[in-house]
Amino acid sequence: MYTLQKRENTQHTAPVPTADIVVRKSGDSRELLIERRRRDPFKGRYSLPGGHVDYGEKVEQAVLRELREECNVKARLVTILGVYSDPKRDPRGQRVTIVFVGDYTGGKVKAGDDAGSAKWLKLNKLLKMKNVMAFDHHRILKDYNKWLKGFQSHDTYWSSKT
Amino acid sequence: MYTLQKRENTQHTAPVPTADIVVRKSGDSRELLIERRRRDPFKGRYSLPGGHVDYGEKVEQAVLRELREECNVKARLVTILGVYSDPKRDPRGQRVTIVFVGDYTGGKVKAGDDAGSAKWLKLNKLLKMKNVMAFDHHRILKDYNKWLKGFQSHDTYWSSKT
Repeated sequence: MYTLQKRENTQHTAPVPTADIVVRKSGDSRELLIERRRRDPFKGRYSLPGGHVDYGEKVEQAVLRELREECNVKARLVTILGVYSDPKRDPRGQRVTIVFVGDYTGGKVKAGDDAGSAKWLKLNKLLKMKNVMAFDHHRILKDYNKWLKGFQSHDTYWSSKT
Repeated sequence: MYTLQKRENTQHTAPVPTADIVVRKSGDSRELLIERRRRDPFKGRYSLPGGHVDYGEKVEQAVLRELREECNVKARLVTILGVYSDPKRDPRGQRVTIVFVGDYTGGKVKAGDDAGSAKWLKLNKLLKMKNVMAFDHHRILKDYNKWLKGFQSHDTYWSSKT
């Protein structure tokens, strides 16, 4: 289409896009990859892998890059679970996060970058950990639990598909 | 959660979030609301209603506000069709757009703001108008067509839901 322009300085009133991912261990959709944050905001709390979308990067690329940097893990994207954009969901300022569901495909789990540690945890355990979860990630896991129950075969379209 | 912070000036490397919507006329999921753009980029071309997400606004609020401003129309959001973030999809610079499907609920169609005109058009007709569509909206309509065929009962979660 076009050569990518340098980002305009005029867009100073826009929220910031991020991407997060619910990664499922092979063969068990209720065992999920969770990290503990090494930095503020929410230092020490549990969160899904994810982070900022860099300028020039698709959201699908961003989430897989963050997953690799933070957990040393690869995954196959399955669908978009949802988009969470409450202006107060991040104390640094508004983030619009696109949340994917993905299936683990490889890599030995090893924490890096924003993640102080990373491990597999059962969804049922995570659902009881509301007070130690970062951002709105507990709410996202509740939605994932609903999605599992009612909408597992669903699908959405996004730009890397078809 | 938190008081909304003033947007940080440091986030100058982030793509800009937008929201667009496929609005279906009551009782006919193949008759869609389309506008012609009054301004560049893509002045004179056909596009879905939508636009930038303002800082402090949820994506669901943004898309319904744009729909009202551009077409004088109200809608009920049905689902997220997908998220499109190819860095070159907008000549102004990277936009990450969250695309909703919605059902028309009221308002006499009347163009305003970025829209020079607005009207209902059949999906089959729109699918033949690739060369006069703005952005990647023709591709989005192709995805909508697939969604209609195979995934009509699907659902995703987003922050205004539950």
